[in-house]
Amino acid sequence: MTPFRRVALLGIGLVNGSLALVLRREGAAEEIVACARREATRRRALERGLCDRAVADPAEAVEGADLVVLGVPPGAMGEVARAMAPGLDTAAIVTDVGSVKAQIVHDVVPHLPDPSRFVPGHPVAGTEHSGPDAAFDTLFERRRVILTPIEDTDPAAVRRVRELWELTGAEVDLMTPEHHDRVLALTSHLPHLIAFTIVGTVADLEKQTRSEVFKYAAGGFTDFTRIAASDPTMWRDVFLNNREAVLEMLGRFTEDLVRLQRAIRWGDGDTLFELFSRTRAIRRAVIRAGQAYERRPVPPEAAGGNGEEENGG
Amino acid sequence: MTPFRRVALLGIGLVNGSLALVLRREGAAEEIVACARREATRRRALERGLCDRAVADPAEAVEGADLVVLGVPPGAMGEVARAMAPGLDTAAIVTDVGSVKAQIVHDVVPHLPDPSRFVPGHPVAGTEHSGPDAAFDTLFERRRVILTPIEDTDPAAVRRVRELWELTGAEVDLMTPEHHDRVLALTSHLPHLIAFTIVGTVADLEKQTRSEVFKYAAGGFTDFTRIAASDPTMWRDVFLNNREAVLEMLGRFTEDLVRLQRAIRWGDGDTLFELFSRTRAIRRAVIRAGQAYERRPVPPEAAGGNGEEENGG
Repeated sequence: MTPFRRVALLGIGLVNGSLALVLRREGAAEEIVACARREATRRRALERGLCDRAVADPAEAVEGADLVVLGVPPGAMGEVARAMAPGLDTAAIVTDVGSVKAQIVHDVVPHLPDPSRFVPGHPVAGTEHSGPDAAFDTLFERRRVILTPIEDTDPAAVRRVRELWELTGAEVDLMTPEHHDRVLALTSHLPHLIAFTIVGTVADLEKQTRSEVFKYAAGGFTDFTRIAASDPTMWRDVFLNNREAVLEMLGRFTEDLVRLQRAIRWGDGDTLFELFSRTRAIRRAVIRAGQAYERRPVPPEAAGGNGEEENGG
Repeated sequence: MTPFRRVALLGIGLVNGSLALVLRREGAAEEIVACARREATRRRALERGLCDRAVADPAEAVEGADLVVLGVPPGAMGEVARAMAPGLDTAAIVTDVGSVKAQIVHDVVPHLPDPSRFVPGHPVAGTEHSGPDAAFDTLFERRRVILTPIEDTDPAAVRRVRELWELTGAEVDLMTPEHHDRVLALTSHLPHLIAFTIVGTVADLEKQTRSEVFKYAAGGFTDFTRIAASDPTMWRDVFLNNREAVLEMLGRFTEDLVRLQRAIRWGDGDTLFELFSRTRAIRRAVIRAGQAYERRPVPPEAAGGNGEEENGG
């Protein structure tokens, strides 16, 4: 891939920080400029070598850049786009890494000098950690990146952004912003909403019971606490900016939950068994799709050898 | 620990099979007899060295045993206890590994010649796999085992069962059966119910969307599919046998979910942000309680080194 001359990363947390590490490793950017409001973030980004320069002003950050990556929470995308516009080269490709797409397109496009250079995107990868210290260069490996070009988007700009993500080890797919939002509502947004809820339900328990819940969390609760430790600002913005799709999927989920509640109340074991057998089969389909590896719980000191095993095909 | 003369394992799946491997490793049983209805299960248990003999009849299995471990699904405990009773030595200690306790006590006790020798128990450990092939000897390491003695239980029998579980590397706690059922309803049963539900919601989608959900599952859905792949028979029995506590906790969860639904619908970002910040703090509490290790997603070939990291204290 022809290297970018100057890449401007607006926001330098888990995702943009990890992208920076890949750009470095692959020699894909002659210069990286990071933009962050907080001084501590800029300092850590420089200390970790995520960028050559770190500035606070978006317009200054994008000056002379041929690629701009918006990596701020979804609710801040429009404002950052507005703030960077005065410094933006009309030929610069602009992309983003937001977890919702239609609303971001709606918020960002009005501020761009040339919307044909805008390639909305979403790397479907993450951890429960955030900030520049959370970045690592294999975050995107074997993950999916969804690009959601709009009607105006120049195919050449899409190709360039696709090449960029392929460098990270991700597979790139294209779909419309609206379709993205419906699929992700179910695979990501609803699971997060549920995890936040159940962990919150525990937080509201009387103190004694709560500490017992932590003690016995290995029974299933642990997985939920990891999901529910994700970045609060980003997730608030996801739900506010993908409202329709999340509410629809939540409605389906609630109907199904009420059906199970009824089966439990009335001792209807057949309904429970039939569902649990179907969901077990789904696990195998997810493993076949390459999105999960089988693993066994391992104590940390034993993690050198048998921690993660792939049995999927 | 003084070894047991003969241990009878009624059911030889993930939990009893893993216990058998520990008994072998620690030389804690002179002889192990397994009991399973299915011929294929008995053959695999013998092939893997989980037992010295494998039989189909519970009464035959417990003959001459000084320790009996009931390791069948909760709904089958009473029937197995009834079936073994004719062969049972009155001095034999009887324990179980069921995930619910009050109902099992209720079902098992009437069949025992001497209820003072009954020590109900629950090792809080598991994977989504089941059967004798799923067994491994570190399943219980750093996990909790809850013993729930009843009023009649002889303290000497409790001590003996506690010693047994401590051999596995688990920490042993005591509580009443009823208290156990309330705590586990929240830490384990409700998370499983929710995971089964959401994975079922996806299973009901039209085929095209469903295959996309698998593709993009890395966004949060994967964790749910792992939980929802757990043994269907066992989980049906858990819900049917811990009905009251599960329905109560489900009620609390649903109230909280409806509150979030309303916040999303009305664009109330403050409510969302406040909750998500609290749940992030809970993760730290669970890690402090030693029930979770921080980890980053790692592709399988890289799992040799950095797969699991412990940052907890």
